[in-house]
Amino acid sequence: MPQQITLYATDFSPYSHSVDIALLEAGAKYTRYEIDLMNKPSWFVAQVNPIAQVPAMTYGGPDVPPEQPSPDSIKLRESQLLLQFVADLFPEARLIPEDPVLRAKVRFFMDIVRTKFVPAWYGHFRGGKPAEPFIGALEELQALLPPSGFVVGEWSIADIAFVTILARAEIILELDHPLSGWSDGEGEMIIDMLHGHRFARLAQYHRDLVERPSFKSTFDNVNHR
Amino acid sequence: MPQQITLYATDFSPYSHSVDIALLEAGAKYTRYEIDLMNKPSWFVAQVNPIAQVPAMTYGGPDVPPEQPSPDSIKLRESQLLLQFVADLFPEARLIPEDPVLRAKVRFFMDIVRTKFVPAWYGHFRGGKPAEPFIGALEELQALLPPSGFVVGEWSIADIAFVTILARAEIILELDHPLSGWSDGEGEMIIDMLHGHRFARLAQYHRDLVERPSFKSTFDNVNHR
Ligand SMILES: N[C@@H](CCC(=O)N[C@@H](CS)C(=O)NCC(=O)O)C(=O)O
Ligand SMILES: N[C@@H](CCC(=O)N[C@@H](CS)C(=O)NCC(=O)O)C(=O)O
Repeated sequence: MPQQITLYATDFSPYSHSVDIALLEAGAKYTRYEIDLMNKPSWFVAQVNPIAQVPAMTYGGPDVPPEQPSPDSIKLRESQLLLQFVADLFPEARLIPEDPVLRAKVRFFMDIVRTKFVPAWYGHFRGGKPAEPFIGALEELQALLPPSGFVVGEWSIADIAFVTILARAEIILELDHPLSGWSDGEGEMIIDMLHGHRFARLAQYHRDLVERPSFKSTFDNVNHR
Repeated sequence: MPQQITLYATDFSPYSHSVDIALLEAGAKYTRYEIDLMNKPSWFVAQVNPIAQVPAMTYGGPDVPPEQPSPDSIKLRESQLLLQFVADLFPEARLIPEDPVLRAKVRFFMDIVRTKFVPAWYGHFRGGKPAEPFIGALEELQALLPPSGFVVGEWSIADIAFVTILARAEIILELDHPLSGWSDGEGEMIIDMLHGHRFARLAQYHRDLVERPSFKSTFDNVNHR
């Protein structure tokens, strides 16, 4: 029987959102506490996450209000580690397959998301870096997909780790986001490429991802949540 | 029943070494192929690991000579992912505990090794960067240790991922390695600190790590292997 779970999260954060989806898929009972990143509570940094990021989780220990975390709970962070933890806690939700080879594929895909896709996207979006590494990362991820279905056929934490970032990236590209250092129309150009022949498999995968009820019911195109 | 395993590895590589140790602990039958990083075979890059790094692994498919990898085997890379794969393939070796919380602790420790300790060490050793981030990473890892024993008490892949790098770092520090951009005596100074009061728990852990037969029998202080 899983013990108490408190998730510290921020609505717009794709990493927080991924953990929300996993917990929802698992049917987990949990307390969700919204952290205002512009105004982080000092107890959060002191007692939950010393690196002051969301998502973070406490697990176990006595039942306490989220603002008064117990020293007896375990403190966890890093969305991809939290996804694996939720998958381990709720094996009946089958968020990760049992077969060692499929598990390796899940982790490999997640690793490319984390080490290539995420830095390339933020480099482009916020860092004014060129779009090529971002396009390259998408190509690499596409190449890992089976002919149809999700990353390993069945839905898994690999899909969860990707969809929350991809969906936000798409919105930002569509808006030709003014915060970016992009030239005019660059977002549109990339969107066109993503809808073209080169990314046909990824586009199908994208459509499958956003139809997943756990995603659909927790994402709002307007508020990015 | 696990299928064929071929490990492409390089003796001096701490990442390769970690996978060797895991396979040894698991009692796995595997083919080991030494890759000369100064002279990488073209088939290795074309057919095994496009990013041309060791360790890499093929799993399954027909029995073929390592120089002629089959398109039907699965190709895997990234030492920490390989460690998790070996742990999944050989559950009876208990390289990762079954308890979800302990598994999360194993992964968290590995994550700090990969994202903080490794970059800080190479930044210092080869990049001429100051020693503080390296010392800081060691302090963070020390803080994750239980009062005695390994990362989660019992031996696990967390210990394997760390020991092969730590042991090499120690040798390099002791030599006050001429390749580094260090000032004279800097290596010795750090070694003294690591032997001092501040790092007492880490030093005990270090002694426990290097006594592990799977490490001891595969490491040679002279050849770094
Ligand atoms: N690698 C982390 C990244 C988490 C992250 O970057 N979170 C952001 C929000 S999206 C954050 O908390 N930033 C801290 C801040 O804005 O002060 C994960 O996957 O959990
Ligand atoms: N993150 C990788 C790092 C592997 C790595 O850096 N391997 C080095 C040898 S220690 C390598 O193959 N370098 C390629 C080269 O030297 O050309 C892992 O943990 O497997």
